[in-house]
Amino acid sequence: MPSSPPSARTRVKRIHDRASYDRDSLHAVLDAGMLCHVGYIFDGYPVVTPTLYWREGEAVYWHGSSASRAIRASEDIDVCLTVTHLDGLVLARSAFHHSANYRSAMIFGTARLLVDADEKMASLKAMMEGLSPGRWDELRPTTAQELKATRILSMSLDEASVKIRTGGPIDDEEDMGSDVWAGVAPFRLSMDPLQPDEIDRAGTPRPPRVSDRLFSPPR
Amino acid sequence: MPSSPPSARTRVKRIHDRASYDRDSLHAVLDAGMLCHVGYIFDGYPVVTPTLYWREGEAVYWHGSSASRAIRASEDIDVCLTVTHLDGLVLARSAFHHSANYRSAMIFGTARLLVDADEKMASLKAMMEGLSPGRWDELRPTTAQELKATRILSMSLDEASVKIRTGGPIDDEEDMGSDVWAGVAPFRLSMDPLQPDEIDRAGTPRPPRVSDRLFSPPR
Repeated sequence: MPSSPPSARTRVKRIHDRASYDRDSLHAVLDAGMLCHVGYIFDGYPVVTPTLYWREGEAVYWHGSSASRAIRASEDIDVCLTVTHLDGLVLARSAFHHSANYRSAMIFGTARLLVDADEKMASLKAMMEGLSPGRWDELRPTTAQELKATRILSMSLDEASVKIRTGGPIDDEEDMGSDVWAGVAPFRLSMDPLQPDEIDRAGTPRPPRVSDRLFSPPR
Repeated sequence: MPSSPPSARTRVKRIHDRASYDRDSLHAVLDAGMLCHVGYIFDGYPVVTPTLYWREGEAVYWHGSSASRAIRASEDIDVCLTVTHLDGLVLARSAFHHSANYRSAMIFGTARLLVDADEKMASLKAMMEGLSPGRWDELRPTTAQELKATRILSMSLDEASVKIRTGGPIDDEEDMGSDVWAGVAPFRLSMDPLQPDEIDRAGTPRPPRVSDRLFSPPR
């Protein structure tokens, strides 16, 4: 994939070797999650709202109720959408060099409201397919009223950067003789057994498939 | 603990029964994590930066290099610091009622730079104790130079709100006869085995204790 040059605000200022601007890295970080933090300015002060997101091609989407302040306030204004996966705690031989392993994407842009009903429906289907493949077709169709009550925002990935830290501690040379344990405590997001809703139903429905992409890969 | 009344910006606008303003809930959400997203305004646009945080009493702290743009830019200005734990995917009987289970805290305020060296050192120790109890005392002392190279910001918890969703799907009455599986796919953050740094050392150092509070409680 071609890389896009960093803009003034996506250029990572420090520790440049952790930064990346290529599309594959960006897609990989985004496709590994479902939770983002959207920042926008409301009444002159910054607000950071957690919400679900999904990616389609070169755009990222998020949605909410038509009554949501966060959704209404972030339409057609500058937004910063950040996704972070925390992969571990890096335990160094000095307090100073402790760190975290993570994968993070930061996207700047203007949020656009989807207005076309077909485009909205297709996007909601894409979201569901990304969470639970095959489920959309098992569910009853989404109604026109439900679609109307849902606002979907999208933003292009044109202005984005990725920052990734992996590996062990980077210690000062003079600390290498230390007898303190050093290394990484790796973190993992995984899924516990499904918890069915406690309602009597005729028969036992087929359990859903939850997308593997959401969980930490095996090490 | 006494609860503080919501301000204009912390008052949760929708689905009020998910909102809380009491200190115990706030402390519990903050103490269950180490990663936050800090939002601030830089050059007129919003920026959301992921970083580690820790809580001491009625304040939250985060830090970075003295060369960090995110740290320098967010001193003495309005900040929104958000912490979110993603606890599960809620699979409903219609696409519309799908949701996520989560615990989230949103804190508004002005970031204050710690300048007193003793206060900075005590705060770094508190951070380390929160991540790996007992480790601070095993490490060599932090030097004056390292302390100088570290900027620590703090912000009071005065203006904060908590939002929590738990439990199964809330479906429309007319969908309750659906034969689609409904319930919760619970997510969990856990720790894999420690990965020691690959350096020859005399003897095998005692492995660190990583704080349990960072991981999902048993269900």
